Amino acid sequence: MSLGEEKFSENASVMKLYLEVSHKLHEEKTPHQNITVYETEIFGRLMTLDGEPVLTSHHSFIYNEMMAHPILFNHPNPKDIAIIGGGNCGTLKEVLKHYTVKQVVQIESDERVTRVSEKYFPELCEKNNDSRATFLFVDASEHMRKVESESLDVIILDITEPLGQAKYLFREPFYRDCLNALREGGMIISQSGSPLMTMVALKDLSAEMRKADYKEIQTIHFPAATYPSGWWTATMARKGQKFGDFREQMARHKPFHTRYYNADIHKACSAMPQFMQDAF
Amino acid sequence: MSLGEEKFSENASVMKLYLEVSHKLHEEKTPHQNITVYETEIFGRLMTLDGEPVLTSHHSFIYNEMMAHPILFNHPNPKDIAIIGGGNCGTLKEVLKHYTVKQVVQIESDERVTRVSEKYFPELCEKNNDSRATFLFVDASEHMRKVESESLDVIILDITEPLGQAKYLFREPFYRDCLNALREGGMIISQSGSPLMTMVALKDLSAEMRKADYKEIQTIHFPAATYPSGWWTATMARKGQKFGDFREQMARHKPFHTRYYNADIHKACSAMPQFMQDAF
Repeated sequence: MSLGEEKFSENASVMKLYLEVSHKLHEEKTPHQNITVYETEIFGRLMTLDGEPVLTSHHSFIYNEMMAHPILFNHPNPKDIAIIGGGNCGTLKEVLKHYTVKQVVQIESDERVTRVSEKYFPELCEKNNDSRATFLFVDASEHMRKVESESLDVIILDITEPLGQAKYLFREPFYRDCLNALREGGMIISQSGSPLMTMVALKDLSAEMRKADYKEIQTIHFPAATYPSGWWTATMARKGQKFGDFREQMARHKPFHTRYYNADIHKACSAMPQFMQDAF
Repeated sequence: MSLGEEKFSENASVMKLYLEVSHKLHEEKTPHQNITVYETEIFGRLMTLDGEPVLTSHHSFIYNEMMAHPILFNHPNPKDIAIIGGGNCGTLKEVLKHYTVKQVVQIESDERVTRVSEKYFPELCEKNNDSRATFLFVDASEHMRKVESESLDVIILDITEPLGQAKYLFREPFYRDCLNALREGGMIISQSGSPLMTMVALKDLSAEMRKADYKEIQTIHFPAATYPSGWWTATMARKGQKFGDFREQMARHKPFHTRYYNADIHKACSAMPQFMQDAF
């Protein structure tokens, strides 16, 4: 490969990540956002939405696995799943590895994210034709208001930062709609940012979930090389019950492969660093 | 603060981290390297050695704590400690928090790193006058050849990347000198790079430690916002005995404050991601 002809940069409060890219593969402006795909020098392909990196071929496996497996192995029998956002389908692919899962509805506002991913990230989309998967390209906040009560076991919020319209997806009213859609013991998980960059937003998110009457809330953390600070969190909450149903034996002997997640990581990812314990 | 007047960039195999800096505070060329200190926009001060970032005021606490506390709480009674490298004194400060520790010898080749740190990172150097601390500004490989046999409990290799002369500090002969200096049950820890960027070097390091006849070897991992990929490892090994002496109650009720480390993190940091298990 030649040396980078151009660079991709993301500015997160003046911390910048530059990836040398060899060329731009795709660029389009949809009604929702700008979608760009680059070929990078060493991280495979990179997708950005409005200039924010959302995934690289080489590193997205950690994020995708951690959005799917901890919550699914924490639930005793996850059958009906909703993924909100997640248009690149990497999380969906992980969810569909669970044979308990009977149905996954993915609610992504921008169909083009999925279509572009099918073309440039086929490895993430290889399960998109699974008969258990349904794709809805609609507004998630409206959709969740209308979902049948107590019809879901797990809701995964694989969404972008709480800016603009997306802000609503980090607030109590939306979490209440999700709570209503969950069965007793059902669980929700949302990406919740970097502990080093946006600790305030992380605390806000937990507080909003708490206001929405979830029984117990827990934050997990994991590496995220393409996101600001390289370290990310997701926050889980459960309806009506405390956590404590980790199916450890299933996780240890799961009939599918993962690259980051395993039963040891499951137990480790909720160990809270001292400054996070102190902040909560 | 004004917008960055200049930028600091580190090129790690074409992954670059850019920090907006407001100004350069210090720059000097020593017989060993170029030392530069910048004021950054949001990460406090940044020190680079030959252009590689070694610490920022805001984030170095994670690295420093993880180089000190897991190994010290894994050892039943760590009294005599050597730190190799560690010129910015952040790890030293953490080591001196342990009241079991009677003596710490820090062997740093470049005295200027320590003097510059005393000036620009006084918070890391506030224990430098502790009567238990001795500073030697000599070559570590030569020094360790002459250290009295069985005189140390813990050796901490807080060193830069295995490039140039530093390469020797990642090889079997040096690890054998360290083994000789350790008492039975004594332990060594070395920073061992990013699992996402330099997995081969991490495997090499473990293999070299194994060749040097340590009884058990274990890698731990933690976030590292200023290093390439934002995720870092350290590898520990023990002389003559297996691990298993974690003083958990002491760690839970330690009489000093930490910001990242705690007993839960201690247990979590050795959980190996699946791709690392598969690689070893």
